[in-house]
Amino acid sequence: MVADNRPIGIFDSGLGGLTVAKEIIDALPSEDIVYFGDTGRVPYGSRSRDTIRKYAAEDESFLLKQDVKLIVAACGTVSSVASDIGAKLPVPYFEVVSPAVKSAVNETKNKKIGVIGTNATINSGEHKRQILELMPDAQVFVKGCPLFVPLVEEGWFESQDDVVKQTVERYLADIKKADVDTIILGCTHYPILSEAISDYMGDSVKLINAGTSTALEIGKFISENDMCNENKKIGKHSFYVSDKADSFRRIASLLLGKELDSDSVEQVDINSL
Amino acid sequence: MVADNRPIGIFDSGLGGLTVAKEIIDALPSEDIVYFGDTGRVPYGSRSRDTIRKYAAEDESFLLKQDVKLIVAACGTVSSVASDIGAKLPVPYFEVVSPAVKSAVNETKNKKIGVIGTNATINSGEHKRQILELMPDAQVFVKGCPLFVPLVEEGWFESQDDVVKQTVERYLADIKKADVDTIILGCTHYPILSEAISDYMGDSVKLINAGTSTALEIGKFISENDMCNENKKIGKHSFYVSDKADSFRRIASLLLGKELDSDSVEQVDINSL
Repeated sequence: MVADNRPIGIFDSGLGGLTVAKEIIDALPSEDIVYFGDTGRVPYGSRSRDTIRKYAAEDESFLLKQDVKLIVAACGTVSSVASDIGAKLPVPYFEVVSPAVKSAVNETKNKKIGVIGTNATINSGEHKRQILELMPDAQVFVKGCPLFVPLVEEGWFESQDDVVKQTVERYLADIKKADVDTIILGCTHYPILSEAISDYMGDSVKLINAGTSTALEIGKFISENDMCNENKKIGKHSFYVSDKADSFRRIASLLLGKELDSDSVEQVDINSL
Repeated sequence: MVADNRPIGIFDSGLGGLTVAKEIIDALPSEDIVYFGDTGRVPYGSRSRDTIRKYAAEDESFLLKQDVKLIVAACGTVSSVASDIGAKLPVPYFEVVSPAVKSAVNETKNKKIGVIGTNATINSGEHKRQILELMPDAQVFVKGCPLFVPLVEEGWFESQDDVVKQTVERYLADIKKADVDTIILGCTHYPILSEAISDYMGDSVKLINAGTSTALEIGKFISENDMCNENKKIGKHSFYVSDKADSFRRIASLLLGKELDSDSVEQVDINSL
């Protein structure tokens, strides 16, 4: 049996990608993971297309130096505006838009789909374009929600928090009025707000966590291509960040759903790599 | 009469410093201004001390290449954690902490002073240290308010906005309970929230806008040192940013209090300067 014991490389503008890493770790426990979070330049979602593309290329180049077997852009913003760069990498490339779109198209009954994300993601129109490609008669309702990331990073995400409730209501009012039955969480921070969003939208509205869809797709791919890690044990998980490791560690446990070892996070200088 | 017709250099992590630029332009209308906003790496306030110091040094180095006669760190975060770097520059250096501290110490009657800012600013303890140096029996109450910057940049700053009101209340409750009569707005975005903060704190509490205090200090300095611009006309104002100029222009008019000419904003690559 052919195998590939190199790690899976995952990157994000910062912390949000950890919700994707969590899904990959849960689905593929024997895989080694190298995660890079560009915490020195987060957030990407309010930056211009050119700047996001430049940063994404640098992040990918860092992961390639770690000898990864594939690269996952675990960032809605990068997936939306820089996937053509990823497609040219010398290793297989996965992003979080198309798996989420496929899941949404499978789930919707009334063909009314909501998409929420950072402004850069929403302005790219990428989710909408892909939804209409798979389901030309779908109706797509989009909304940029720039305050969701800072809210999560401040630790304000409980569904009973008044600021959270009102921010959710203000951003989602039009999407609710449009009677969607499915919403794509187009930013990898947003699964942390799932409960608050469900409380407002109602339980009948299905929320698509891009991380879950992407992890399934990666599992299928490495299995079909004989690229699984043949060491049948728990994989090693290494984290690199471009700002101090301490502040990353604090919130990382929330998104990853487990505490990080103190020696598993290392700071690197992305501009001198 | 000796004069110095070179521009005044002002920098900030992004847009907030424009509230300082506005005060300088109002106080010194004949001065030329070169403003650099590091919009490609904003915000600084949630980053580590080392990263902020590295970015500040790069920003200052860009301004020096524009042949400025003095440099203003129009950023509460940089002023709090990197002023020792500024003090070693080959031109006079101004920051926004010490002028605000002097104003607060002059204003307070009950010697109870509040300080609000980004987490990096508050964690530095710099305002508190300087207040106690000038007024050893003062009581200082501090609070990091990380959501204020994203709220302002999202355009949510009206005093009647429920999310704004509740966020202000949550951050300032302890400072209000402490019965302060003066609050230093330790981040240059915060003057935009003045009305909302005053509504909650009450009109008797004096809010210190660091930009006003800093502009007065600069005016005094250039006058005493024969460094005024001798061209008695309206100065030229040039703006440089490290991300796209378009998104900067949109919100800049709010903070600067005037529309920007389309050719007055230019994007530069801070990493290749």
